Amino acid sequence: MTVSVYGLGRFGAYWASVLANDFKVKGYSRSSSRPTPEGVERVDLEELYNCDVLFISTSISSVKEVVANLAKGLKPGTLVMDTCSVKVYPVKVMQNLFKKDIEIIATHPMFGPDSGKNGVEGLPIVYSPVRCSKENEKFWFDYFEGKGMVVETMTPEQHDKEAAYTQGITHFVGRILDKLELEDSNIATKGYIALQEIVKQTCNDPWQLFLDLQSYNPYTAEMRNKMDSAINDMVEMFDNLKKSEELDG
Amino acid sequence: MTVSVYGLGRFGAYWASVLANDFKVKGYSRSSSRPTPEGVERVDLEELYNCDVLFISTSISSVKEVVANLAKGLKPGTLVMDTCSVKVYPVKVMQNLFKKDIEIIATHPMFGPDSGKNGVEGLPIVYSPVRCSKENEKFWFDYFEGKGMVVETMTPEQHDKEAAYTQGITHFVGRILDKLELEDSNIATKGYIALQEIVKQTCNDPWQLFLDLQSYNPYTAEMRNKMDSAINDMVEMFDNLKKSEELDG
Repeated sequence: MTVSVYGLGRFGAYWASVLANDFKVKGYSRSSSRPTPEGVERVDLEELYNCDVLFISTSISSVKEVVANLAKGLKPGTLVMDTCSVKVYPVKVMQNLFKKDIEIIATHPMFGPDSGKNGVEGLPIVYSPVRCSKENEKFWFDYFEGKGMVVETMTPEQHDKEAAYTQGITHFVGRILDKLELEDSNIATKGYIALQEIVKQTCNDPWQLFLDLQSYNPYTAEMRNKMDSAINDMVEMFDNLKKSEELDG
Repeated sequence: MTVSVYGLGRFGAYWASVLANDFKVKGYSRSSSRPTPEGVERVDLEELYNCDVLFISTSISSVKEVVANLAKGLKPGTLVMDTCSVKVYPVKVMQNLFKKDIEIIATHPMFGPDSGKNGVEGLPIVYSPVRCSKENEKFWFDYFEGKGMVVETMTPEQHDKEAAYTQGITHFVGRILDKLELEDSNIATKGYIALQEIVKQTCNDPWQLFLDLQSYNPYTAEMRNKMDSAINDMVEMFDNLKKSEELDG
């Protein structure tokens, strides 16, 4: 089986190298300066289409343009799987732009080059078969499970709702704290060290991923507003506490 | 040497049991329902005064009242050490209310029953000698260091400034996220699991500690306002992004 990976950015390169342990993997990037991951054959777009399965690992904001292009070149019967960090939006795009003879399974590996650097065992992957043969649905479920991943089958809507309050809120908190330029400290508590680690990890990912995670997931706006309200309430509570103390004093 | 501990709350009980490994420790609590830590002799207030060193481990908001009471009973020459999570305020109170013949060293162990449950080795303790003999200053520095703690000598002002942006911000984030009632998830990323752990740890401490940490440290208001601004900017950025997309579409 030949597997193609479109996009060799931070995640795509990592994902291609994971797949290359088990498949013949072809990789393509629009940017020639991206390095080729070990075990992956770098190809041009024409050659990329010669595959059984194609993974799309581009930024969420470029999915529409990429899918429109792929729709012109992919052979009938190809299975396409995306790995975007949101699911409702790319699934809609793929359903709209791919002809009916292209199969679709949406996925979201809930890990990347940092969290998966010691292997993928025990790490969750979201699995949303959109339209595909029973054989393909079973094959890829079994493959991911066989690698030790925890495969969670869910709809794109379920994913986006749950991801907004898990991955989404983590990145939001990490990026906000990054604005405050927190420093190392000799009197750091264990909690503070854990907080710094979260900032470091989330800010290791591209800024574009953060923007897209927050913009293209329909549930993150609610999450951000809840955070905003909670912090406003808290700031107000302490302002009032201070005022009543001043009145006492 | 006899060491007394005033206050057997969550931290006081933990601290008394740490000290009981090396000293004869007497413990007192205003609340009779508090359990007596292992190795500690439970005493009344009169008996508590019969000591060489007295640790104050009460809530920050009760320090003034406690110190005013202790000032009436402590014997001349007693060394008093507080363990409050802020330093400027209790030091001022102790300097004002204790007679000159009471020695004072302010401390802040940057750990507690959760983070110190596997031992104190490598954990930081802030050390602020306020007025004491060279012997006492050296003895307790060496004692804490001998237990493996990382002793950081600094002024109360330095402590409060640095703690606002380390321990203070961690508790603030933990309590805000707690308001959002984050749930466990099968698709949790490693970062999200770390974030949940921070919420759990900070919310394990008493609510009063959180209130006091934020109210009695003169630098936390600035920290909270910076957080508030950062989150407002971020929410606004995404609102504007969304608007420009709507205009495009």
